[in-house]
Amino acid sequence: MKRKIGIIGAGVGGLHLALYLNKHGVDATVITDREPHAYRDSQLINTVAHHHVTLAREAYLGIDHWSKPELSYTHHNHFFNFPEPLQFRGDFSRPSRAVDYRIYLPVLMEEFMRRGGEIEFRRVEEDDIGPLVDRFDLLVVSTGKGGFSQLFPYRPDLTPYTQPQRRLCVGLYKGVRHGEPMNVTLSVSPGHGEMIVIPTVTFDGIATALLMENVPGGDLEELATLSYAQDRPRFLATLLAKLEKHHTTTYDRIDPARFDLAQEQDLLQGGVVPTVRSTTVEFPGGKCAIALGDVHSVVDPMMGQGANMASYAAFVLGEEIVNSDVLDVRFCEKVDLKRQDRVLAASRWTNMMLAPPSPELGELLGTMGHNKALADEFTENFNYPEVQWDRISTPQRIRAWIDRTAADRAPQTQAA
Amino acid sequence: MKRKIGIIGAGVGGLHLALYLNKHGVDATVITDREPHAYRDSQLINTVAHHHVTLAREAYLGIDHWSKPELSYTHHNHFFNFPEPLQFRGDFSRPSRAVDYRIYLPVLMEEFMRRGGEIEFRRVEEDDIGPLVDRFDLLVVSTGKGGFSQLFPYRPDLTPYTQPQRRLCVGLYKGVRHGEPMNVTLSVSPGHGEMIVIPTVTFDGIATALLMENVPGGDLEELATLSYAQDRPRFLATLLAKLEKHHTTTYDRIDPARFDLAQEQDLLQGGVVPTVRSTTVEFPGGKCAIALGDVHSVVDPMMGQGANMASYAAFVLGEEIVNSDVLDVRFCEKVDLKRQDRVLAASRWTNMMLAPPSPELGELLGTMGHNKALADEFTENFNYPEVQWDRISTPQRIRAWIDRTAADRAPQTQAA
Repeated sequence: MKRKIGIIGAGVGGLHLALYLNKHGVDATVITDREPHAYRDSQLINTVAHHHVTLAREAYLGIDHWSKPELSYTHHNHFFNFPEPLQFRGDFSRPSRAVDYRIYLPVLMEEFMRRGGEIEFRRVEEDDIGPLVDRFDLLVVSTGKGGFSQLFPYRPDLTPYTQPQRRLCVGLYKGVRHGEPMNVTLSVSPGHGEMIVIPTVTFDGIATALLMENVPGGDLEELATLSYAQDRPRFLATLLAKLEKHHTTTYDRIDPARFDLAQEQDLLQGGVVPTVRSTTVEFPGGKCAIALGDVHSVVDPMMGQGANMASYAAFVLGEEIVNSDVLDVRFCEKVDLKRQDRVLAASRWTNMMLAPPSPELGELLGTMGHNKALADEFTENFNYPEVQWDRISTPQRIRAWIDRTAADRAPQTQAA
Repeated sequence: MKRKIGIIGAGVGGLHLALYLNKHGVDATVITDREPHAYRDSQLINTVAHHHVTLAREAYLGIDHWSKPELSYTHHNHFFNFPEPLQFRGDFSRPSRAVDYRIYLPVLMEEFMRRGGEIEFRRVEEDDIGPLVDRFDLLVVSTGKGGFSQLFPYRPDLTPYTQPQRRLCVGLYKGVRHGEPMNVTLSVSPGHGEMIVIPTVTFDGIATALLMENVPGGDLEELATLSYAQDRPRFLATLLAKLEKHHTTTYDRIDPARFDLAQEQDLLQGGVVPTVRSTTVEFPGGKCAIALGDVHSVVDPMMGQGANMASYAAFVLGEEIVNSDVLDVRFCEKVDLKRQDRVLAASRWTNMMLAPPSPELGELLGTMGHNKALADEFTENFNYPEVQWDRISTPQRIRAWIDRTAADRAPQTQAA
């Protein structure tokens, strides 16, 4: 049963799949237009945290090169900038880790090639699809570059927004004190935006990602367009002033004298339209292309789900390829059946958090402020978005979750 | 966590669910307009075989009252009425059984009530839905009566036919010799129709169901409208002549002197439009109705899947109810995720068999004629329609299945 799998795109989804197939003796070819050496000086690509389910996949693939405990973080600190600030902590059962993808992706590419995997470094576009279909038994499309995502129509039923819901200002900074142990802060300034503060392994040790999710029309929006290159002092002064006002607990960790981008190219500004696409194209003769990662579902980065879902879906796809005789529409349907609950839950959960909170969601957050077990479960569920969605998808579910956690605590109170 | 489940309809799906919930201590109320005693003299409802996965569910529910081995059948005999007839046998791993539902359903109803379950005997219609929603935490709709199936729009993507593909003439007959051990015959007269011959436990012991699936425009079509009540001798003479011409191996088992309906009401004529419906309705406030069994997917009876799928889906639904805090749209979505592959595969497989066979399907049947392992697997897959669909959904899959089975046999040939 000799099959050739073509993987277009060398992001985390494409590379985790390539390494998985290589490990199982399946012939996989990655096609990408960016060589490993081209990442070193490139603009910041993203800021990505891998949760422990993803780290377990890295261990399985033998690519856990950053497993020293001091590179991981153990919990989330939450800060809500209310007149009476709300703060609470939620712990993971096992640590998470963020590595700069300009380091991570080239290492995976080199590793894949070292193990005999083939990467073709060339630009492909939609016109190349015919020869690619002829050449491979299955095409995996894991990049939107070259117009490939247009093969997969977006699904209006799962795509509630037509505009970015946050104006992003994402940078890797020096001069921000790390916690001990390291942790991620989820900081919320109601009406203005969220900021995810992530200790990130980058070229010069650990820097701090400030992933600023700014609400259009709010006080922080201008950060998404303010130019660092044209006026560095103004950028930094404006940013510091906004942090002091909106994200106080993080501002308190900053040494203004040292505060700056870790490198001048460590900034990314823009926005994402969360989009879910149909996943399968069947070509004449029965061969298929299947969408993976962002091509299937691109999410706002707020809940840190995009890369983790791409890795998860890569493993589902890899397992199915290894176990399947035939890579046809039925194969693609089975892949979708296995991955869709988690992948779509990540999208729906994130989309819910982008919207103004319901009264029940507000109550949930307030309850987490004095219920550590609830906060821990919410945090752990970053690994299992389908479980998070089970907890919060409807007001009834949030209510039931709060009640159940309160009931779990009640006997302890009585015993005390 | 006290929930009240309302089940509209007392077919196999509704009753298996009711008994499952009762076993797990969940409050379930069945609503049906037909009391147990009303079944004895009613017209034939259907002819249904339960495959071993369904019999295992009956054992779990403690309702396997027909478990004597002599009431079961062990294999399928296939007969294709070609100029050079094709015949082959396929064995199940465990026996199947057919019990007249005019016996089966009342026994289950009595059993449910004996165990404390509540059945409301009354007619409900779509206007009753408001009070029912108020009264129950979840409504399960398992009957199309009273217009309830209109709550669930049909799905054009999964409903390829707008007309019945076979004109059915279904009867329970005496005067047909049983095999030893008992078996089901799948008899095909190309261009004219199929006949499923099922030894069936009925009021006076075991009779023989002749489930005739007649192709519109074929030589057998008239059987679907020929009146037994108006002219019994003509009906029987016509039927015997058709059987002699088209379904020879079954005709050979008939004693014409004894051949007749087991009871005068043991005949059912008509047709089914295979239809798949969406499964969930959400009401204001968040409560839901979920479709079960024929309301979800009604199949032509040719492959014997309808009742088995209703029972399967009842168990999936029951398990989810037992394990869920909240019975909302997310709950319904999770039920669908778990049941849809098997339920939809039964629909697709049956729909495929209603269409003219592809060259590959023809080759598969021919190969089964000299490959017992393949015929056994095809037969066993009546229990697992999603596996059958894995094998035959595309020409590539049929090809791969034949090749794989041939490869499995090759070493034995070499060793001989």
